[in-house]
Amino acid sequence: MTGGSAARTYWCERAWLGSGAGVDQGVLVDVEANRIVRVQTSQPAPASATRLSGVVLPGIADAHSHAFHRALRGRASGVSGVAGVARGAGTFWEWRRQMYAVADRLDPDSYFTLARAAYAEMALAGVSAVGEFHYLHHGPRGVAYSDPNAMGHALVAAARAAGLRITLLDACYLAGGIGQPLSGVQERFGDGDAERWAVRAEALAAAYDGAPDVVVGAAVHSVRAVPLDQVPTVAGWAARRSAPLHAHLSEQVAENDACLAAYGRTPAQVLYEAGALGPRTTVVHATHPVDSDVALLGGSTATVCLCPTTERDLADGIGPGRLLLEAGCAVSLGSDSHAVVDPYEEMRAVEMHERLATGRRGHWAADELLAAGTTAGHGCLGRPDAGVIAPGARADLVAVRTDSVRTAGAGSGADAVVFAATAADVTDVVVDGRAVVVGGMHQLEEALGRDVGTGLALAVVPLWEARP
Amino acid sequence: MTGGSAARTYWCERAWLGSGAGVDQGVLVDVEANRIVRVQTSQPAPASATRLSGVVLPGIADAHSHAFHRALRGRASGVSGVAGVARGAGTFWEWRRQMYAVADRLDPDSYFTLARAAYAEMALAGVSAVGEFHYLHHGPRGVAYSDPNAMGHALVAAARAAGLRITLLDACYLAGGIGQPLSGVQERFGDGDAERWAVRAEALAAAYDGAPDVVVGAAVHSVRAVPLDQVPTVAGWAARRSAPLHAHLSEQVAENDACLAAYGRTPAQVLYEAGALGPRTTVVHATHPVDSDVALLGGSTATVCLCPTTERDLADGIGPGRLLLEAGCAVSLGSDSHAVVDPYEEMRAVEMHERLATGRRGHWAADELLAAGTTAGHGCLGRPDAGVIAPGARADLVAVRTDSVRTAGAGSGADAVVFAATAADVTDVVVDGRAVVVGGMHQLEEALGRDVGTGLALAVVPLWEARP
Repeated sequence: MTGGSAARTYWCERAWLGSGAGVDQGVLVDVEANRIVRVQTSQPAPASATRLSGVVLPGIADAHSHAFHRALRGRASGVSGVAGVARGAGTFWEWRRQMYAVADRLDPDSYFTLARAAYAEMALAGVSAVGEFHYLHHGPRGVAYSDPNAMGHALVAAARAAGLRITLLDACYLAGGIGQPLSGVQERFGDGDAERWAVRAEALAAAYDGAPDVVVGAAVHSVRAVPLDQVPTVAGWAARRSAPLHAHLSEQVAENDACLAAYGRTPAQVLYEAGALGPRTTVVHATHPVDSDVALLGGSTATVCLCPTTERDLADGIGPGRLLLEAGCAVSLGSDSHAVVDPYEEMRAVEMHERLATGRRGHWAADELLAAGTTAGHGCLGRPDAGVIAPGARADLVAVRTDSVRTAGAGSGADAVVFAATAADVTDVVVDGRAVVVGGMHQLEEALGRDVGTGLALAVVPLWEARP
Repeated sequence: MTGGSAARTYWCERAWLGSGAGVDQGVLVDVEANRIVRVQTSQPAPASATRLSGVVLPGIADAHSHAFHRALRGRASGVSGVAGVARGAGTFWEWRRQMYAVADRLDPDSYFTLARAAYAEMALAGVSAVGEFHYLHHGPRGVAYSDPNAMGHALVAAARAAGLRITLLDACYLAGGIGQPLSGVQERFGDGDAERWAVRAEALAAAYDGAPDVVVGAAVHSVRAVPLDQVPTVAGWAARRSAPLHAHLSEQVAENDACLAAYGRTPAQVLYEAGALGPRTTVVHATHPVDSDVALLGGSTATVCLCPTTERDLADGIGPGRLLLEAGCAVSLGSDSHAVVDPYEEMRAVEMHERLATGRRGHWAADELLAAGTTAGHGCLGRPDAGVIAPGARADLVAVRTDSVRTAGAGSGADAVVFAATAADVTDVVVDGRAVVVGGMHQLEEALGRDVGTGLALAVVPLWEARP
């Protein structure tokens, strides 16, 4: 469903090669199979090369996704969407109730259809790899599907159909809160204990051993959902496989409070003491760390995945992103709930939110935000060989218009992309050497005979219309 | 340069008619000249009607614009853009220095070219009327042009060329700070005193008396720029003409501090005591009012114009928008510095910022945010007859796609527009009965033989390349 993957040469009008905010002109990129083999700057355009206009970036990594949350966009605003909730009284937890209602209607087929459409939207925005934080494992009332990884396989198939690489972060989810059993739809998330989770995760990972486009990683959903004594099993599995290990961390103050009350430790301390913090670890959000958590996370050289458009949508708050970077963390980005799928908005929101929190500007340079969306993102998804336009790297290229009404006049470097572009300005996307988006059209559209918007509507609307 | 303005009938697949978050289906809108004469719902599409798909809104009012700030997009990020400013140390005042550098290069011709392109970008986003807060009145060193309103006329001509109505808010700007003379480019803003400002404003207003597409209003730039004893003259001129009166208010804490130090009063108190607060007044930003200011503004039934995408870009902070609404203010919206021109992003940012400030969701219903962008906006621009799809109203219609990758699946009512749409989803815009945007193309593009992005680049780039 994507373009050919033979040897090919791209000529980029301008390209961001990863050092500083500047771009190089006339960048010739030779690709063989899924790798970049040569990069030359200041070159004239050869007649045989595929021309990419605007500014060309490496592929973007969307490092934290819950694909099915795409079904909630525009439908869970906290006012008109929630019956009986007073103005200004909507919370994260209310939103979660709505999200659960959607989760409860999904099966492997509808999950595939929805995720394929959600991933196609990402590809159109320039995303070449998604980190799917996956916890909807089982059927109604927690009964396993005949293949216990049917839902995970659906996600991999969806990413492949949409032309993206996937890092499937299989989440261990055992409790409905600290000391509380799973209830309702949460039963579909649980494996009973971490040992049984590891058996299932191992089978999933084995199914994709050697696949160039799939990484299977682990996730501790959160300290709410995985008891302290179960965390080491998950961390140990990830360590044995040298796989990425992700965890939601301190997204809500209530999570910190519950954790301190139960364990006398912050969520970051719990992960640290369970051996779950290290360079392969990504903590998602880290919106409310205490000072000692910042030092702990930085010292562990964990990645922090910020999801600013979701963090504002869910009223999580503004995390200390810059502080965490300076403490030693890598910082990556995710669109998480997909209230917005726009990596450029995600990048600038990191800076904008720090401006709102501090009353000062200029916390992040544009190239640092691009690095968060590219090298740091692919790195935390277990792909250190992606996110840069350089020989040996995965052949991902994203062309962003600099002549649209949004970007025109905004310059031609990293600042124009980060502070002016939107997902709508992406024209061409190459993933692993294959042309996934050409001239703003996803190649899936030709294969399916319908556009991605139609695919999204077909996937989302039945989930709501079927609700009792 | 726009489509014909004879009688015409539009058939809207769905339209937001202003009551609640719902939309009506099959809405037939009869237009004669620049007015809507009949609205019928649940109608089949007549063959003779112009069909508008998606959700149709009334025209959007961008109630606070500094057109020339569009030249700064992507070029004043606070890090790479400012030499010698340490990370995280950029301020509003640093940004203002860069903005002044652009202002200093403009003349009536380049101002027209830049404003026409900026307004065309607005029209493409669904804006049918702009409130231009205009203070760049004179030539270098403050020497008046042969027509002292040459710059104002350039703005009106730009709005007409771009197909928008304009409310030209001619700003009195007399001081470089409380008790400080104008310096540098500020000399171009000044008229010496408010009496001389009023003479010039009167000539400007007289030039457009009776024009259906132009309102001339007044502005007190701010309490920084207009001494206490000069404010009544400006307010009095606006009162005599029953014209809108706008003022920047408490955008920065430093403004509050300086005002309290000099006058022993808050900026809102200064305006109140000068007779400048009332139902024709719009205060812009109101980011840092004290509690008594909220009561004062609410009691005066002034409009508050929030500019959230600018307020985050300039690190102003998050104002108490909802509190001001509940105190009695109308709330309108402006894109101000044009870091972003996207009315839907502007609407949802009001809610998102309150979420970030409070940790709770659901402060604003989608239809309240639509009302801020439409009825409240046109109202504060002196056009109470615009911003609604109803008989007698200005014939402004904006069609927003609900089948794009951004909006698909997000529902079909106000929530879909406010929480999912972007400016890129606007397909058709009718202003005063004239088709300004058709199928995503601005009619100016045909007239000029180039697209709006090219026009923006042609207007912006020389301003930077010519800098010494």
